[in-house]
Amino acid sequence: MTPTDVTHVMTTNFYAPPSAIRAGRVVLPEDEARHLRTVLRGEQGDEMTVVDGHGGWYRARIDHVGDEQVVGTIVERRRNVGEPAIDATVALGLLKKRTRFETFVEKAVELGVRRIVPLRTSRAERASIREERLRNVMVAAMKQCRRSRLPALAAPQSTADLLAESGGDVRLVCHAGDASVPIQRAMGQAGPAASALVLVGPEGGFAPSEVEAARANGCTPVSLGPRRLRAETAGLAALHAVVDAHQNG
Amino acid sequence: MTPTDVTHVMTTNFYAPPSAIRAGRVVLPEDEARHLRTVLRGEQGDEMTVVDGHGGWYRARIDHVGDEQVVGTIVERRRNVGEPAIDATVALGLLKKRTRFETFVEKAVELGVRRIVPLRTSRAERASIREERLRNVMVAAMKQCRRSRLPALAAPQSTADLLAESGGDVRLVCHAGDASVPIQRAMGQAGPAASALVLVGPEGGFAPSEVEAARANGCTPVSLGPRRLRAETAGLAALHAVVDAHQNG
Repeated sequence: MTPTDVTHVMTTNFYAPPSAIRAGRVVLPEDEARHLRTVLRGEQGDEMTVVDGHGGWYRARIDHVGDEQVVGTIVERRRNVGEPAIDATVALGLLKKRTRFETFVEKAVELGVRRIVPLRTSRAERASIREERLRNVMVAAMKQCRRSRLPALAAPQSTADLLAESGGDVRLVCHAGDASVPIQRAMGQAGPAASALVLVGPEGGFAPSEVEAARANGCTPVSLGPRRLRAETAGLAALHAVVDAHQNG
Repeated sequence: MTPTDVTHVMTTNFYAPPSAIRAGRVVLPEDEARHLRTVLRGEQGDEMTVVDGHGGWYRARIDHVGDEQVVGTIVERRRNVGEPAIDATVALGLLKKRTRFETFVEKAVELGVRRIVPLRTSRAERASIREERLRNVMVAAMKQCRRSRLPALAAPQSTADLLAESGGDVRLVCHAGDASVPIQRAMGQAGPAASALVLVGPEGGFAPSEVEAARANGCTPVSLGPRRLRAETAGLAALHAVVDAHQNG
């Protein structure tokens, strides 16, 4: 279908850290280079898209495909491709099942999260994460969904520490209580915001004292509708509502 | 903390088909009865909540806990607890990885879907589903999120058959093309709707001819934002937007 003299443009994004991009050239890291060569059959003369995880987006023409190295010349530069306007942090209680936390992380990257905080809460059944594994999930999701920023993954921390160290023009705590308002209404009332912090409990929810601490630290209690969502679904639904409200607001 | 003379109310919902509910009594099916007895340690005099998957919701006092049977007397009846106002069908292309389709099914139930249609499309890499396994996922999700309706799971079908047999006051096809409008805008323009049909492609998206067929059959092409979502994430984001638009509209 495609004439053979047309440049082949690979549809998968590649990742290279900012240090690998200089003087108009990009050098792919070894694992990315191997993927390009062995799986995608990239060749000299093809075009590739590279993101640096810090908002840098590059279209490059491949000059050289070696066994462990791919080098390209940058032909176009852009900033913040695929990034939402709002800087959204989602803090999610550590979950009993690691695969559910991984599902959350993958889809949160796709939906535009900027920072993920694994929360140690009184009802969380774990205290640790598999950091390298989660980071790999995040890099893959960033490439797959064609973002240019790799969201930050914080070390697990307590609700108290998070509330003390985090900003957020809008601060929300998901909690199905009488004082809660629908998250969409809370976002509408808050008006345009540059950043948001959303707290979501683990399987068993937050303890009343944790919700109270969040309120005392400027968080609005919000509800996510009439159904009781699993923790990781709640995190994704809240993130989607926050990013959406901003896109339309 | 709780005085021992207060009735113990179990927080997990149970499922019993409509045929198991008659003359003011409910009889739990064997697997539900076993779960109540062995895992949750339910006892005579406790209160349980039972849903029938058809919109029936019952609070019942347990009269008898046997080895394979639990019988209760209904003390409160309600209809459509936890159900969204809009009747939403999501048709999702069959995915290569079965676990991703399962993740979609679980979370779609939580987010309020009424019918799930596995789509055979030209780029789908499978033609079948594991029906019983998906049904189990759906029942568990219905109970967990405290809905009262079990969404329908259709047999896998082609896009053409779906378009011919399905209704939908609002009909949308997710497609990242120039003619697409943001899904939130499409929902806003459509105004109040009793039902919606949303088509989402498999990993490789819809073929142009499939998008054209959908348009010719009354579907508005919609986009889900600037990031390329995985198929199952796209299905969930579209469903969330449709259910949300209606809740606020």
